[in-house]
Amino acid sequence: MTQHKVTFLPHEKSISVEPGTQLIRAAMDSGVHINASCGGEGVCGKCRVILESGEVEGGVSEMLSAEDKEKGYRLACLAKIESDLTIRIPTDSFIDARVLNLQATARKTARIRELNLDDLKEKGLFVPPVEKIYMELPPPSDADNIADVSRLVDFLRKNHDEHRLEFDLSVIRKVPDVLRQEDFKVTVTIARPVREDGKNRVVNIQPGDTSERNYALAVDIGTTTVYGELIDIKTGEILTRYGDFNAQISYGEDVISRIVYSEKAGGLEKLNERVLSTINTVIGKLFKKSKIDPEEVSTITFAGNTTMTQLFLKVNARYLRRSPYVPASIMYPPFLASEAGLDLPSHVTALVYPQVSSYVGGDIVSGTMGSGMYNDEEITLYIDIGTNAEVVIGNKDWMVCAACSAGPAFEGGGIKLGMRATEGAIEDFSIDPLTLEPMNVTIGNVRPKGICGSGLIIIVATMFEMGILDNRGKFNRNLDTDRIREKDDVYEYVLAWADVSGTDRDIVINEIDIENLIRAKGAIYSGCLTLLAEVGLSIGNIDRIILAGGFGSYVDLEKAMTIGLLPEIDLEKVIFVGNGSLMGARMSALTNRIRRDVTRTIKRITNFELSETQSFMDNYIAALFLPHTELNHFPKLKARLDERRKHMDEMPDSRDGGIK
Amino acid sequence: MTQHKVTFLPHEKSISVEPGTQLIRAAMDSGVHINASCGGEGVCGKCRVILESGEVEGGVSEMLSAEDKEKGYRLACLAKIESDLTIRIPTDSFIDARVLNLQATARKTARIRELNLDDLKEKGLFVPPVEKIYMELPPPSDADNIADVSRLVDFLRKNHDEHRLEFDLSVIRKVPDVLRQEDFKVTVTIARPVREDGKNRVVNIQPGDTSERNYALAVDIGTTTVYGELIDIKTGEILTRYGDFNAQISYGEDVISRIVYSEKAGGLEKLNERVLSTINTVIGKLFKKSKIDPEEVSTITFAGNTTMTQLFLKVNARYLRRSPYVPASIMYPPFLASEAGLDLPSHVTALVYPQVSSYVGGDIVSGTMGSGMYNDEEITLYIDIGTNAEVVIGNKDWMVCAACSAGPAFEGGGIKLGMRATEGAIEDFSIDPLTLEPMNVTIGNVRPKGICGSGLIIIVATMFEMGILDNRGKFNRNLDTDRIREKDDVYEYVLAWADVSGTDRDIVINEIDIENLIRAKGAIYSGCLTLLAEVGLSIGNIDRIILAGGFGSYVDLEKAMTIGLLPEIDLEKVIFVGNGSLMGARMSALTNRIRRDVTRTIKRITNFELSETQSFMDNYIAALFLPHTELNHFPKLKARLDERRKHMDEMPDSRDGGIK
Repeated sequence: MTQHKVTFLPHEKSISVEPGTQLIRAAMDSGVHINASCGGEGVCGKCRVILESGEVEGGVSEMLSAEDKEKGYRLACLAKIESDLTIRIPTDSFIDARVLNLQATARKTARIRELNLDDLKEKGLFVPPVEKIYMELPPPSDADNIADVSRLVDFLRKNHDEHRLEFDLSVIRKVPDVLRQEDFKVTVTIARPVREDGKNRVVNIQPGDTSERNYALAVDIGTTTVYGELIDIKTGEILTRYGDFNAQISYGEDVISRIVYSEKAGGLEKLNERVLSTINTVIGKLFKKSKIDPEEVSTITFAGNTTMTQLFLKVNARYLRRSPYVPASIMYPPFLASEAGLDLPSHVTALVYPQVSSYVGGDIVSGTMGSGMYNDEEITLYIDIGTNAEVVIGNKDWMVCAACSAGPAFEGGGIKLGMRATEGAIEDFSIDPLTLEPMNVTIGNVRPKGICGSGLIIIVATMFEMGILDNRGKFNRNLDTDRIREKDDVYEYVLAWADVSGTDRDIVINEIDIENLIRAKGAIYSGCLTLLAEVGLSIGNIDRIILAGGFGSYVDLEKAMTIGLLPEIDLEKVIFVGNGSLMGARMSALTNRIRRDVTRTIKRITNFELSETQSFMDNYIAALFLPHTELNHFPKLKARLDERRKHMDEMPDSRDGGIK
Repeated sequence: MTQHKVTFLPHEKSISVEPGTQLIRAAMDSGVHINASCGGEGVCGKCRVILESGEVEGGVSEMLSAEDKEKGYRLACLAKIESDLTIRIPTDSFIDARVLNLQATARKTARIRELNLDDLKEKGLFVPPVEKIYMELPPPSDADNIADVSRLVDFLRKNHDEHRLEFDLSVIRKVPDVLRQEDFKVTVTIARPVREDGKNRVVNIQPGDTSERNYALAVDIGTTTVYGELIDIKTGEILTRYGDFNAQISYGEDVISRIVYSEKAGGLEKLNERVLSTINTVIGKLFKKSKIDPEEVSTITFAGNTTMTQLFLKVNARYLRRSPYVPASIMYPPFLASEAGLDLPSHVTALVYPQVSSYVGGDIVSGTMGSGMYNDEEITLYIDIGTNAEVVIGNKDWMVCAACSAGPAFEGGGIKLGMRATEGAIEDFSIDPLTLEPMNVTIGNVRPKGICGSGLIIIVATMFEMGILDNRGKFNRNLDTDRIREKDDVYEYVLAWADVSGTDRDIVINEIDIENLIRAKGAIYSGCLTLLAEVGLSIGNIDRIILAGGFGSYVDLEKAMTIGLLPEIDLEKVIFVGNGSLMGARMSALTNRIRRDVTRTIKRITNFELSETQSFMDNYIAALFLPHTELNHFPKLKARLDERRKHMDEMPDSRDGGIK
């Protein structure tokens, strides 16, 4: 698609965006601050900009006078970019202009890594786990009346070099009629063995030629959400995706409360029934959306954390939450999907990703497989941030992992006005370093209702870098703004006043929120340090970071490093894989190589219980600062802070900022 | 047990019998004729004998006068042998005495071959398919919190040298709770792989030490009857047996009528449901009788003919009865018993014997395995006579087989007063060569109601050898007895007059009955000859005959050879295995060696469709005589006939017997 170039003045910053992009988002992405309180709904009228050249759609409201409009004023939150533009941000004073380069840096999200089937083929990693073969068999006669199954076996052996064949009972039941339905022209579906010495299982037989229609399902069973994909095994194409909330959620938001419920009489059965009903809903939607016949699906792969996996398989989860935190099993055998209660034809085989420990589950294993990390030379730090955070470090030769008790801060938990990344959540933010006025952008461009995880990181990082917060996460008490105030003995910053908020209350972030965020990021960072120390390495040895989890797609990488959530490495070396769990499930559905390699990989992963690891507590306490007690770990941030301090010192009437 | 010796005079024949044996049966077994019409119920009063020494219990009735009793007269059918005896059979004339040695030969049933576990062990054939191992595991701790299943695997590897272990999902579900039930003391049940490169499947886990309780089930699914056995895997002992009629029987007596019914809408499901209900009844009784907990059973093995196997597995049987008679499959994979609808715990694995063809099924394969024939050097003729007859010839290197359309004559079918071997069936018979008076012995010693298969053979063989029937199975028209008569244009012999019969009608055998018997035995014998010819052998090459089927236990071997049902070989070389199908199922439950060998054996068996085999019809027509057109095939019978002719010629007032 054609991109439009937008230039912001007086900053002289430019950005290329897609047609229809909102002006305020283009400004935010370029690191240009525009005062804006109402999240983008157009009610506060603060985000006035001057359209110097080009065309926008909208951008006018009753908040602008006829004269303003004539002068080219537009509301940045309501204006959609329709051509190349030059936009001037009004500045009230000379000083304003001087601090422009103290403003936020441009957004830097991670590169997205997409599965590439051609790559797989090139590397010899594409070994379809299920193949279809069309055959025209000679019909039986008096002189040749061998059993129907023997006829198939003989033909496959002679004409298709297929050996070690084994027929499922459900297939044998179909064979006599299906063979005679289209005059002994049939398509058989063969499931390949994971181990080379295994058998080739014939899992389906269909009349006529259906060999072009060969599909697989991949499902990520998340604590909050269940995502599914329908995949064409022949092309590797994802035909459709669908996600739905895990219906277990009414029995508790996190895994612990689910386990507690599962221990009640009938609880395990109830939770099992609920997650099955969600999965069946997701599968049903996938078939409906794609118009694919369920009969054409041969295999389904699941990935989920250890608790979700055990509840899905109806395996007692009680001991997962009791010291010494023992899962029932690492590996599970393949099983028939229909027997597990899934609405799928009787021939569909189900596979579940193996677990590492009670808190590093199949979702993480799936991510390390699907991202290719398990097979790379590079030392990779894999981080999946969800309700909790799991960290894996290693390469094709070794891996160490741990679950970090980060808590749900990144999903809005433990934050006074925290919320999930849904409509009304402040997801992006900047602040005017002089007036301390905010620029809030919300999901859906509606009045702000709260703060989501990625927004929280941006707010805290921005305020810290501006000197509004100190390295303990406390507000500078000397700043001259009514937005920072003490309420109920806690200092807070008002992001949006009640009159422009979506809740009729002031939208605030307070020091307790920030403390919780620091604990969360401290748990993750110290988890990484502890794992590195256990294998005799340090941050400098990390070649690459892979971010997984929905959260990872929105997080501003530089901001995440500013608060000390991620170690500071070259941003180009950070890769985002999105739902790593689903990605691995998809890969396993596409190539047997993954299915085989995972059993080897799982044996190479060493799990650490951080609470049992001597050095963890020291690392954790050192990480309870912004970004860390060791600022030397963050050389780029240190340089930026030094630069800012120099600017502030040079300013004629510079205020006593938090960083002095 | 002590045996009593009974000597019959004037014949001077002796026999040793168990205490309590009825005198009439001892006479029959020694080949001593006593007139007896009423089957042993004591109502005809004809079987008067004189007790010269020793003690009997009973033997008196109102049919004997006080004077008779005083003289030592007893009714042979009511007298039970309680000591060594001397018994004189009253003879009415000198001539009577002269013909004594023309009477029937002594009964010669086959030796019964019993499974011998020590033999198996000696031959290295005893490889239990399921073993139990008791373990006391170290409980988990902070320093050792591997998954429960991993703990089991590690312990089994280190302490029991167990490798390639695989856990069923149903077992993983039990593991966490069972481990903690008796402080990590558990017994695991391991199913051994049939192929050496297979996995050891852990199929059950139980708290505490249950390693002494390891049982298996074996079931023969017969068209008429389902038999089951509960076996102790550790000792090989059969703990209990039970049989019940196959509840499918209300949908037809033979396999063809079952297949016809199965083709109706819902027919297959109905027949499947009926046989499952019968099997469940049998299994339930086995548990009840033995007081064994079903939880302690690990495996169940089934054997049945091809139709029964397909109906049991709910596999369309339609094409079994349509040319070119194609079964669905030879082999079936193992499956979970509970999933097939059997009332057994979820861990129990079921195995079904493979088939050879539509009419040589798993019951026959099972017999060739269970009898050890598949592994012997000797060339064996294996014959299973039931509703139909199947014949296998071969040894450890090769086997040929065929189903013979013998029809149900041996089960009483096609015989005017034929019946199954139940109460009231004439099962043994002799005839006075002068008076032509019969000696009938019935099952249950009640008035005769009809003739069962083994009785039929004895009757026809005896009459043929006596010259009452000619070699075409026709009655000698010149005999002076009202027992042979023409009725509705058919000649018949009255075995019992209505006044002593169990049905208020005369019990007869007619020439149509005999024709049907000749067709049946002709089909079997010509089947054997045809198979032998196909492999370039003849009767003389047969080292051994194995008789299977309930029928085989009662048949008098010499009589069976006299009518030309069995080839004439040394009687010592005939072995009876009873229910060969059940025997093979039991062997498979006891030793994996059989399970492994059967897949190799099945490939070595060549099936012949007799109707498609050129030489069969000639062989069949030649076999439609008593014993055969080629009397030279039966040298011993020929010698007996020659001997008899000499005797008859020597007799002063010899009658014109049928053999002249």
